[in-house]
Amino acid sequence: MKIGFIGLGQMGSGMASNLVKARHEVTVFNRSADKAKPLVEQGARLAETVGQACAGADAVFTMLADDKAVEAVAFGDAGIIAHLPSAAIHISASTISVALSEKLLAAHQHAGQHFVSAPVFGRPDAAAAAKLFVVAAGPEAALADCQPLFDAIGQRTFILGDKAPAANLVKLSGNFLIASVIESLGEAMALVAKGGVDLTAYLDLLTSTLFAAPVYKTYGGLIAGGKFSPAGFAAPLGQKDIRLALAAAEDLQVPMPVASLLRDRFLTLLANGGANLDWSALGKLAAQDSGQPGPIV
Amino acid sequence: MKIGFIGLGQMGSGMASNLVKARHEVTVFNRSADKAKPLVEQGARLAETVGQACAGADAVFTMLADDKAVEAVAFGDAGIIAHLPSAAIHISASTISVALSEKLLAAHQHAGQHFVSAPVFGRPDAAAAAKLFVVAAGPEAALADCQPLFDAIGQRTFILGDKAPAANLVKLSGNFLIASVIESLGEAMALVAKGGVDLTAYLDLLTSTLFAAPVYKTYGGLIAGGKFSPAGFAAPLGQKDIRLALAAAEDLQVPMPVASLLRDRFLTLLANGGANLDWSALGKLAAQDSGQPGPIV
Amino acid sequence: MKIGFIGLGQMGSGMASNLVKARHEVTVFNRSADKAKPLVEQGARLAETVGQACAGADAVFTMLADDKAVEAVAFGDAGIIAHLPSAAIHISASTISVALSEKLLAAHQHAGQHFVSAPVFGRPDAAAAAKLFVVAAGPEAALADCQPLFDAIGQRTFILGDKAPAANLVKLSGNFLIASVIESLGEAMALVAKGGVDLTAYLDLLTSTLFAAPVYKTYGGLIAGGKFSPAGFAAPLGQKDIRLALAAAEDLQVPMPVASLLRDRFLTLLANGGANLDWSALGKLAAQDSGQPGPIV
Amino acid sequence: MKIGFIGLGQMGSGMASNLVKARHEVTVFNRSADKAKPLVEQGARLAETVGQACAGADAVFTMLADDKAVEAVAFGDAGIIAHLPSAAIHISASTISVALSEKLLAAHQHAGQHFVSAPVFGRPDAAAAAKLFVVAAGPEAALADCQPLFDAIGQRTFILGDKAPAANLVKLSGNFLIASVIESLGEAMALVAKGGVDLTAYLDLLTSTLFAAPVYKTYGGLIAGGKFSPAGFAAPLGQKDIRLALAAAEDLQVPMPVASLLRDRFLTLLANGGANLDWSALGKLAAQDSGQPGPIV
Repeated sequence: MKIGFIGLGQMGSGMASNLVKARHEVTVFNRSADKAKPLVEQGARLAETVGQACAGADAVFTMLADDKAVEAVAFGDAGIIAHLPSAAIHISASTISVALSEKLLAAHQHAGQHFVSAPVFGRPDAAAAAKLFVVAAGPEAALADCQPLFDAIGQRTFILGDKAPAANLVKLSGNFLIASVIESLGEAMALVAKGGVDLTAYLDLLTSTLFAAPVYKTYGGLIAGGKFSPAGFAAPLGQKDIRLALAAAEDLQVPMPVASLLRDRFLTLLANGGANLDWSALGKLAAQDSGQPGPIV
Repeated sequence: MKIGFIGLGQMGSGMASNLVKARHEVTVFNRSADKAKPLVEQGARLAETVGQACAGADAVFTMLADDKAVEAVAFGDAGIIAHLPSAAIHISASTISVALSEKLLAAHQHAGQHFVSAPVFGRPDAAAAAKLFVVAAGPEAALADCQPLFDAIGQRTFILGDKAPAANLVKLSGNFLIASVIESLGEAMALVAKGGVDLTAYLDLLTSTLFAAPVYKTYGGLIAGGKFSPAGFAAPLGQKDIRLALAAAEDLQVPMPVASLLRDRFLTLLANGGANLDWSALGKLAAQDSGQPGPIV
Repeated sequence: MKIGFIGLGQMGSGMASNLVKARHEVTVFNRSADKAKPLVEQGARLAETVGQACAGADAVFTMLADDKAVEAVAFGDAGIIAHLPSAAIHISASTISVALSEKLLAAHQHAGQHFVSAPVFGRPDAAAAAKLFVVAAGPEAALADCQPLFDAIGQRTFILGDKAPAANLVKLSGNFLIASVIESLGEAMALVAKGGVDLTAYLDLLTSTLFAAPVYKTYGGLIAGGKFSPAGFAAPLGQKDIRLALAAAEDLQVPMPVASLLRDRFLTLLANGGANLDWSALGKLAAQDSGQPGPIV
Repeated sequence: MKIGFIGLGQMGSGMASNLVKARHEVTVFNRSADKAKPLVEQGARLAETVGQACAGADAVFTMLADDKAVEAVAFGDAGIIAHLPSAAIHISASTISVALSEKLLAAHQHAGQHFVSAPVFGRPDAAAAAKLFVVAAGPEAALADCQPLFDAIGQRTFILGDKAPAANLVKLSGNFLIASVIESLGEAMALVAKGGVDLTAYLDLLTSTLFAAPVYKTYGGLIAGGKFSPAGFAAPLGQKDIRLALAAAEDLQVPMPVASLLRDRFLTLLANGGANLDWSALGKLAAQDSGQPGPIV
């Protein structure tokens, strides 16, 4: 297929690379063009504008940091909606607000284009290895057209119905669940560590039994190791996602006390020099509050 | 080995039965003797007093509901400490406070006996199937003597050092982590359900990916199904464990905001008719707060 | 002075009326014109557009429900900024976001007008009685010009410097403090009531001693009486103000756990039929969670 | 009247002194006898044992730091219950648990003595100036007998019925309310201070308007001033009171989320070197979490 790909950060680079490997015709666009170099060497074409990335495309991916970045490339005279061919598909893989997803859905429908939400679970290494989990929602036919693309970037696709914003809600809820694991693991580890228990043995116990899941292994190890830099997923992005989850929860009138706690924890982390750390640094705040030594950075 | 077993509730019955099957000489005691019947039919002897369960034993298990029940059988003229032979082992498998564990350790040392903490993870079906996870701490030699017993009741033993109370702290922290999964899953499910997402598809996604752990499968299913009765692990026991985790955290000066939230959630559940429900009913409170229909009971 | 007054709700009507009584030339505007009738009978002129309310004015007040309403009358071709004379003052008395206040400040400066923030503390009865507390910030000269107006509507003015948005931040923090009194009083009253203490005696004790403040008297009485309708200050407005306080806190990176709790409480209230109640109904949620009888409505 | 007085800390010394001034015959007892000296110089007799303080007394006050201290002087062969004359009154002014109050009530009834709970509100300066507020509950006749004593130590007495433990519950709820003011003021002040507002002007505004209560003046000033040492009421005592409030709430099944938050805040304070500070230091944690400079000590 003829694919545009907008956003070549840590995640997007790996995804676009896998689309090239799967022999799709990929045209890439990034605000700072130097990030496109390795992809061009692999065989991708370089677009100098968003419009060029959209011209003649069957589908255009966006994989950007936040609502603002997606709005900037989607709307306006130079944006995706203005340049994507009729009946082509915008595949939004970024973790964005439910509200923006609804706005994009309406705008694309109005322009005679399709809109599919397909946020992903996985960190940069999973993106590079085509091991992402794709959470997709949108019109059935468009999803069927996208399936080969999802297969190129991920290990499995989960379809969540025909309303694109549902996939964004699920993605946000998933990041909320990960952050809640980080927080509760951080509290449990602060408790047993202050009680004299060895954290390696403790994590082995947890992750060999009821908590034998990737999320406990990954984040338990990061918290115990205290190595939060360089960030796989930076704290400000985690804070943003909790903000978006809370915003969706507010619109739906769903109180979420753990999410509210996470919000405050992220602000504490950011206000105390954590802006460049991995979001798992959140898991050290309980130890810090309990007076245990070891600065976060 | 010659084993006493005190406490034949849902968990204890299965554990004692597996000790009998492993051809240990088991003498059982329960406050209400009728629960001992099936075990006697299997080949266990019936003790009419705690003292009889201890007489001549190499080790005596206690598997009781709470601190009060353990204190009642451990201390006093008719208790374990008064009747267990010198050099024999008290294996405390109950989920009790760290403070009581410390008190038992001191009392047994004073009486020339050994004290091993060996709380377990697993619900009644796992106890019946000898699939428990045993979390053990105590003197090295005593732990070695107990290993055949642990093998008879569980699928794996985790050794947490030579200080028995450490195992109790870890067990409490584990139950805290389970309860925090129930709460955060409950919040996430309340959010996506109110947003129109199908919960079965949602749980499939979670438990096929980052949250592929028994705890998410078990409790996600219970919350989505809304079937909280009969209780596998009753809400008052969950509330007790969070109380004990918070008490240990207070003694160690470790603030645990998620545990504090769980404390309030359990009180809400109990104050609103939840005393006979499974503790997973906690996971319905978020839906209830968000005005979604479906009473808990 | 020649005054425009935009927004004749429960609060605005009283304020405008007091400006008329103080012999200012007042031109009033309200989206639904029937609310202007009593004021016209008192001597105010009726504007049919925002522009008419601004034409030739020395100052124009806005007293509206939320950011959206203020934005609608401030910006655009038909708005205040387009119609207010150069060097005239926009006095924003609404409880709006700090972000909108900053935006208004910039827009008025650009248009050669002055912008003063002057949110008020007090319920409708205080507005009618000219007993409001005015919290004002803005350029010194403009504040001096406004003082006779503040004197006409309030019992005292507090000046918070020359940056208008500071007054909005303080107003939001004040509403946060009131809501935190409602919540903590609600918890304390749920506790002692369930313990058999008479609430009237309890409130007398509190408000005769350390808590001898209007806020405890007013809200303690409302919670104990359980009469939340008609609303003096409706729950959705309270929820909005906590949202704006949290938004300001997020921008400033200040974690506020009590505010986060209030956010969830308001959502619970709104999701369970509380949209038409006074915000003091929040104070009944603790009793409800504790299983005490008496529905909120 | 003939009065025994047990416990001559910062509060008890002032109270005993005022009883002496009111011409009661006061016999004082304190664990470390040197604290009794000034009172003996004023005219009090010195008891060398608890029994001597009780011998022949019409009433004996206890004003001690916690449950443990009260239990130590009340029970046992050398305790108050063993030595107080029949029909005499034990006036418990300490802030103790509801559970201990119930235990004392039963023990005194069994011994043919009266038990009155009379905890007080006020800091050491109020105790010295006979300006305490007395919160009393107990048998009507006993309360009437005690009234002259309450008049000697306080400015006003509030009667809360004939069940002594009710007064303890109310006292604990009152300290909870004070602590919740400290926390919410701390959050509000962290917010506006980071937003550039002058804290002195801010507190003037609050305490001149809706929050014109002693508790806001006292604690607002302490937090803004950052002077937490020497402690008028030490942080560990505040932590104890929140623990007792939560224990009473647990027995009554009343979830109290603000109290739970305060519990965690106190543990953070204590775990980070706050054991010798005034409990108002809690109000600095929000500023600290928000990265604002200025260490607590």
